[in-house]
Amino acid sequence: MSELTRQLARFIAASRWDDIPRAVRHEGERAILNWLGCALGGCRDEAVERLLAALREFAGKPQATLLGRGERLDALSAACVNAVSSNILDFDDTHLRTVIHPTVPVAAALLALAEYRPLSGAEFLHAFILGTDVECRIGNAVSPEHYEGGWHITATCGVFGAAAAAAKVLALDARQVAWTLGIAATQASGLREVLGSMCKSYNMGHAARSGLTAALLAANDFTSSEHALEAPRGFCNVLASRYDAAELTRDLGSSWELMQNAYKPYPCGVVIHPVLDACLDLRAAHRIDPQGIVGVEVSINPLAQQLCGNRTPRDGLEGKLSVYHSVAVALLDGDAGVQQYTDARVSDARVVAFRDKIAVRSDAVIGKEQARVRITLAGGESFEVFVEHARGSLRRPLSDADLEAKFRGLAAAGLAPPAVEHLIEQCWLLAELPDAGAIARACAAPDA
Amino acid sequence: MSELTRQLARFIAASRWDDIPRAVRHEGERAILNWLGCALGGCRDEAVERLLAALREFAGKPQATLLGRGERLDALSAACVNAVSSNILDFDDTHLRTVIHPTVPVAAALLALAEYRPLSGAEFLHAFILGTDVECRIGNAVSPEHYEGGWHITATCGVFGAAAAAAKVLALDARQVAWTLGIAATQASGLREVLGSMCKSYNMGHAARSGLTAALLAANDFTSSEHALEAPRGFCNVLASRYDAAELTRDLGSSWELMQNAYKPYPCGVVIHPVLDACLDLRAAHRIDPQGIVGVEVSINPLAQQLCGNRTPRDGLEGKLSVYHSVAVALLDGDAGVQQYTDARVSDARVVAFRDKIAVRSDAVIGKEQARVRITLAGGESFEVFVEHARGSLRRPLSDADLEAKFRGLAAAGLAPPAVEHLIEQCWLLAELPDAGAIARACAAPDA
Repeated sequence: MSELTRQLARFIAASRWDDIPRAVRHEGERAILNWLGCALGGCRDEAVERLLAALREFAGKPQATLLGRGERLDALSAACVNAVSSNILDFDDTHLRTVIHPTVPVAAALLALAEYRPLSGAEFLHAFILGTDVECRIGNAVSPEHYEGGWHITATCGVFGAAAAAAKVLALDARQVAWTLGIAATQASGLREVLGSMCKSYNMGHAARSGLTAALLAANDFTSSEHALEAPRGFCNVLASRYDAAELTRDLGSSWELMQNAYKPYPCGVVIHPVLDACLDLRAAHRIDPQGIVGVEVSINPLAQQLCGNRTPRDGLEGKLSVYHSVAVALLDGDAGVQQYTDARVSDARVVAFRDKIAVRSDAVIGKEQARVRITLAGGESFEVFVEHARGSLRRPLSDADLEAKFRGLAAAGLAPPAVEHLIEQCWLLAELPDAGAIARACAAPDA
Repeated sequence: MSELTRQLARFIAASRWDDIPRAVRHEGERAILNWLGCALGGCRDEAVERLLAALREFAGKPQATLLGRGERLDALSAACVNAVSSNILDFDDTHLRTVIHPTVPVAAALLALAEYRPLSGAEFLHAFILGTDVECRIGNAVSPEHYEGGWHITATCGVFGAAAAAAKVLALDARQVAWTLGIAATQASGLREVLGSMCKSYNMGHAARSGLTAALLAANDFTSSEHALEAPRGFCNVLASRYDAAELTRDLGSSWELMQNAYKPYPCGVVIHPVLDACLDLRAAHRIDPQGIVGVEVSINPLAQQLCGNRTPRDGLEGKLSVYHSVAVALLDGDAGVQQYTDARVSDARVVAFRDKIAVRSDAVIGKEQARVRITLAGGESFEVFVEHARGSLRRPLSDADLEAKFRGLAAAGLAPPAVEHLIEQCWLLAELPDAGAIARACAAPDA
């Protein structure tokens, strides 16, 4: 118990690429493809523009690509900006048990480092898998008390993930990795209070930057505690009212948290997803003309109602947490992508009018991944479907083809079709790439 | 209660230089003089060298001076490095009620900004006084629960001080200042667990950098919560088991926390200070030859015994928390400065041997600022003194001349005597300087 930080550090330092099962490697490639798409889709968001306006003047040499943009910044600044870009759409992945979005802080730090200090695709994937594992294990240990206590868990645990991944590719020894975790611990921050603002994604950027910094400092023998997780005044005790130490090391090296990672098919609250599945499936299966719809009855889990029962969302962000808006756009547009959650779409008169046709009731027998939807047409005809497991849930994961389709939708705005297809190919070949930084450079796009 | 963050933000935005009493302005100058000395004394520490070795490659344009060194980095990186330099010797100031070291994060952020975006000495002092006030008020509100909970309070509150000061000189409006405080809150970090390592001072550097970043982001309308201090998931609730909201705004603008600031005469644990006063006074008053000393009896407060009762310190850092080492060097050397707390001095054979002559007993009737010391000589003669208030305590503050002497001792290693005297003069004229950044440039010294 008193050696948990060191135990994790030794594991990270000793892990070999051969230790990583094929399925875990492929899950890493899936996570990276999904993440790059999110970054390409989010990189022109106003939050990114303001972040860059503030920080560009202080950034260093052009070491690393800003994904989807034309500019290059120093690796630490690029890690920060790319983390913000890839989280801003709320479309990134989710470790459902902790609600950590594992890839953003880890991949953002690692890819920026890969451009500064070239590493192979296998080294990149290996470090990424270790980083997300450490990040989610720490999250498991402090859940649910830590998040309930007000901490934005992706940021507070993400800094460890970014730090651990960077420590691995910098080939730090076990003591340096322990320091890395200590430097990460003392930088861990991020409050749920700011989630309704641009700071939601800045938390990720700060975690990515701070985590990468931790490893760079430790690589230069900048010392820290070697017990920063479990010490009486360490991370777990100070930032959680209770924690389960066993979660940190249980089945270490044989069970990988990345295998518990889920990818969103829709850029909105995950509890709305089964409803969207139902609406899109019914519309397609019965070739429903939205003009003819007179009523939609939706039955959902009470939590979904509580979190997403907003009848009158006012902007894109609120729309992402409104089942009414989501049903309206899914049935009107036959889609539920980024374009369906813009400020303009949320205030569109036809969409707003359609909401009145929707009745939502909560039902405790319906699970969180489930929904029932009945659509009634003007002629009196009606269609109903029950969704057992939402698309993107662990029981019904997005296929590789689904992830490719999602990527194409997100990347199309910034990259030409051949570049999009090239990137997809590179992600599936990531483990064989001689230079992982190539995928960052393939995401460069000229600024307007 | 629900508007505390906004109330502080309005206060910062509306405050005018004319509102600051003369005595508070002068205390600001004293704090800056003391702080610059600490930075000049600490800037060649191994921790600073390793920090720079790690981060130099990622730093930006040469916007701001590294105090006591030849290099210039971007303002954010310089803020970080200068905060580390000025804290590393444990010789900086202390807001005794909270144990915050108020000047380090605020001044480091502000002086770096002053070189990037020139401002007058009055603007600098004004923002510094506001920054330390906000920092210590937040500290008062969450004390003692926050520090007891494991938080390194100078870092967690320092980020607000740096942010508030930078927001003032960037002339942000009240809403932007509230965002600044929100961005600071979500970056607040720093664990006491790492205090025995180089991370102790890195916590300060991270706070200075993050606080300055907060103001720069808010200046570009990067949004955050406007209730980050008092919200249910805000800083005070999440990082303390209890807090006193009234402390945030009580006598705002009429009572200034900087007036509760104390300066250390000796670079060691503050509870040892009255003992050092006694030893140095006795030695000087009676021209005691340390060779002739056969016994030293020290009576101290029980807390001093508990914190600093280490009989066998092994290095400089442990020596700073050993009353035995401190008494030995004070009587042998007739001084207790930075040179008395090096690793070499702590392991010096004569110093180690002298410790055996020292008997320390704790006595609850002796206050924390008090000590009694009796020295017995080989001939049987003995001298005793009781110190009522330690030098540097609020009841017996260091005079301006004391601060000048301390500054000369710290600055002498890096700067020529005329440069040292010029800097002292500049600090006393700070309110009249047309360009505050000039004091940073006057601290530049060629690298070896």
